[in-house]
This record gives sequence, structure tokens and C-alpha cells, in this order.
Amino acid sequence: MNFTTETSSNGVIERTFTLGEVTGVLWSPEAGSAGAPLLLSGHAGGMHKRAPGLVGAALHQVTTHGFAVAAIDAPGHGDRTRSEPDQRWADAIRRARTAGEPIAPIVVEYSRSLAERAVPEWRAILDALQALPEIGAEAPVGYGGVSSGVVTGLMLAAADSRIAALSLGWVFVDDALVEAGRQVTVPVEYRIPWADEEFDRESALALFDAFTSTEKTLHAHSGRYHRLPEYERGNSGRFFAHHLGRSAEAATR
Amino acid sequence: MNFTTETSSNGVIERTFTLGEVTGVLWSPEAGSAGAPLLLSGHAGGMHKRAPGLVGAALHQVTTHGFAVAAIDAPGHGDRTRSEPDQRWADAIRRARTAGEPIAPIVVEYSRSLAERAVPEWRAILDALQALPEIGAEAPVGYGGVSSGVVTGLMLAAADSRIAALSLGWVFVDDALVEAGRQVTVPVEYRIPWADEEFDRESALALFDAFTSTEKTLHAHSGRYHRLPEYERGNSGRFFAHHLGRSAEAATR
Repeated sequence: MNFTTETSSNGVIERTFTLGEVTGVLWSPEAGSAGAPLLLSGHAGGMHKRAPGLVGAALHQVTTHGFAVAAIDAPGHGDRTRSEPDQRWADAIRRARTAGEPIAPIVVEYSRSLAERAVPEWRAILDALQALPEIGAEAPVGYGGVSSGVVTGLMLAAADSRIAALSLGWVFVDDALVEAGRQVTVPVEYRIPWADEEFDRESALALFDAFTSTEKTLHAHSGRYHRLPEYERGNSGRFFAHHLGRSAEAATR
Repeated sequence: MNFTTETSSNGVIERTFTLGEVTGVLWSPEAGSAGAPLLLSGHAGGMHKRAPGLVGAALHQVTTHGFAVAAIDAPGHGDRTRSEPDQRWADAIRRARTAGEPIAPIVVEYSRSLAERAVPEWRAILDALQALPEIGAEAPVGYGGVSSGVVTGLMLAAADSRIAALSLGWVFVDDALVEAGRQVTVPVEYRIPWADEEFDRESALALFDAFTSTEKTLHAHSGRYHRLPEYERGNSGRFFAHHLGRSAEAATR
């Protein structure tokens, strides 16, 4: 893992890194994060490791809870070169949207392909992060994601027992994803829009129902997915703090 | 409204009161609550104005947000005399529970009767509370309730436009309650258990779907209704703080 830049402001150290062809960013508290949870953050398809909502949530989790948060660019996203097959998927989604046709079938297929490639990348990133003295192998690990980042998170949690909690946003759900959901046994919170014309509510509830986890929470909000009420934004930090144990602040007391 | 006792501890003033035959309790911050929201709290059938969960939430809302919180005993509950018809309902619920039969049909009927009687009581209580200088007519008003307290809250909100936000817990839902839900236009949050053998999930989702409110949030939790995760407990305070405007603390800045 090569750190390429480092900046610091408002109590947060931001470092960009590369590992092989994967580009990523790590946010951590200036005060140190030893013993604090590490969160992995998976962006939506078409976005990148610095998607605005993702950065806002990460900074909140670092400053409020003392967590470390890592985000990487998905294959063909952000600072990474897009392959021809990926470009064809992206083009097909844009064409469908322009034509007013459903994008879900294309997004589902594309997300699954991205997840298959992203899971080994995340596992290698996690190895490298745990080798850093300021994080360490004992730090409990959570994963948060939206859209194709949800698909990656479910496959990553099934493949890697280090993932101890999942915070998931909206995602197009097919039968294969419901099947993947059945393998989830760690605590999970799942946020869905209740009234979004592009988003099928029944399949979202089926995914929530499928999680085997003893501890699971569904949050449904009126309106479309991007209109998450402001007073709900701190929830995923509280969810991770509850399930991943002590925050850095508590650990140093 | 006659105040009958007054005690004070940990920054909270607790006063019991009577208004006609209604017995109640008012919690408010020692530091004063002028301009802060007033919350009305409706207990579950078989409980009373000092049900443990209700008191815990009220004290949290007073100390964290500076709200005033009022709870009253439902007809025939707590310090109030139970009528013969009410006693027959309570006996019927106990018999059904002992026999392992469904209690929902009896609870639905009983809750509706309680709500019909409790709505005019709450309106009179609200008049009296708003006449207190430490609360006043300008304080925004929210209502929180569980079980039969949900039925009362929905009928109260339909009858009295002073109710500006609703925080609802689990309740047995029949078609009449879904119909009442359609009349709800104020912000609402609704918490349901996802896996409770006594509790029908489909009708709960139908009630959430029925709310006409632009702002509505559903929280579903794994397990039974009494197992609300600890990290979720502060949510209704944040919900009311968001929708009812300034807390007392903010108001005095």
C-alpha cells in the first residue's frame, strides 16, 4: 500500500493510497484511531471514492466516533481506467435512461460483475490496512455501501469473516441478491426509499427479510432515495458504534 | 388543572396533575421550557402514565432536548377507576392470552373505545397545558404512543390540528386504523417489530403506506417489539427536534 498524498484539516487526516491498480483514500482522526473500528465504504455505480454523500458520512464518523474510514474506487471508476466491457454497460445504462426504459436489469448485471472483481480488491486492501500500526489487526471492521456498493458488501461479508457489521443503502434487488442476503449473519441496517418510481419496494423488503442476522434494522423513508432526512444521517455512525464496540475516544478513557 | 405533587431531580421537574377525572404527569426542564416543543405521550393498553419505557424516553427528551413531556392515564388505567365494560375487555384479553388464542381482535376493539374517550381528554389537557406560562400556546406539539396509544394518537391528530408530528410504535392494525392513517398529513415516524409472532407485518406496512404525510419514516427491527435496539432509543427525540423546531436550549441562545 503506497500513500500518495496526505492532508489534514478539522482533526481529520486524509491520505490517498494505491495498492496495485486500486486507488483509495483513508480518513482517520488526528488524535489517533488505535483500537477504534475501521469502516470500509463502497460507493454507488457511476460514482467514485469521493462521492459527496460518502465523504460527508466518513468525516462525520471520524470526527464524531473516532473511526477510521477507507474508500476505494470500484473497478473502472474514479481514478481507474474503464475497460471496454464496463464502458458498454455504462453506455447501456445511459441509453436506457435516455429512452425512459428500466435500468435495473442492466445495473444488476453490471453491479454483480463489479462486485466479483471488487471483493478480492477489498480483501487485499483490508490486509494492508490491518498491517498499519495505527489500525492493526484487532480493529473491528464494518462495511457501508449504496447501490453496487451494496452488492459488493454482501459478497464481501460472505467471503470474509472480518466484516462484522453492514450498513446498506438502496440497491436494485434480484433473486441472486436475496440469496446472497440469506448468508448475512452479522448485524445489518438497511435504508430504503418508500416511494421511488425506479425502486421496487417488495424486492427491497424481501432482501431485508432474507438476512439471517439476529440484529437487523430497516429504515424506510418517504420520497426518493437521495432525500434521506437530515436527522437520520447520524444513524449509521451510531449503528457501527453500537455493534463494533468502543470508539477511539472511549478506548483512550 | 390541579397540580398535586412536585419533585425535582437531575434537572427535571416532575409534577402530577388532575383535570376532572384524568390523572397525569408533566416532566419539564428545571432550566425552563419556554418556546420548546411539548410532547404528549400515550401509553399501551394495560400500562399507565409511568410505564418504564415511557418514563425513560420522557426523561431523555427533557434532559437532551429541553422538551416538556406530558403523559396521562388512559380511561380505566393507572390511577383511574376501571369501568365494568373496560374490565370485561381486560378479562377477555387475559383469557385469550392464557388460552393461546389471538388477542388482536379484542385489543383492536378495546383500543378504539379507549381512543374515542381519550381524544377529548387529551384536547382538554392540551388546552390546560397551553395555558401554563412555562409552556404557552406557541409551543409546537408532538404526540408519541404505543399500542392503544397509537390508535388514540391517530384519532387525536385527525381531530386536533395542534398535533404537528407523530412518533408511533407497534399497534394491531385493522382496516379502520389504515383508514385513520390516510388522514395523517403531519410528519410521522413508525417503529415496528419485523419478527414478532403476535404481530402482522403486512398490515403494519399497509398502515405506513396509508399515511399521506410528505415526511414519513418506518423503522423495522428484528426480534420482538420490546427489543428496540439501544442505539435507536434516541431517535424519536431527534425526530421531534427536527420537525418541531428549536429546542429550549436553542431558543434561549
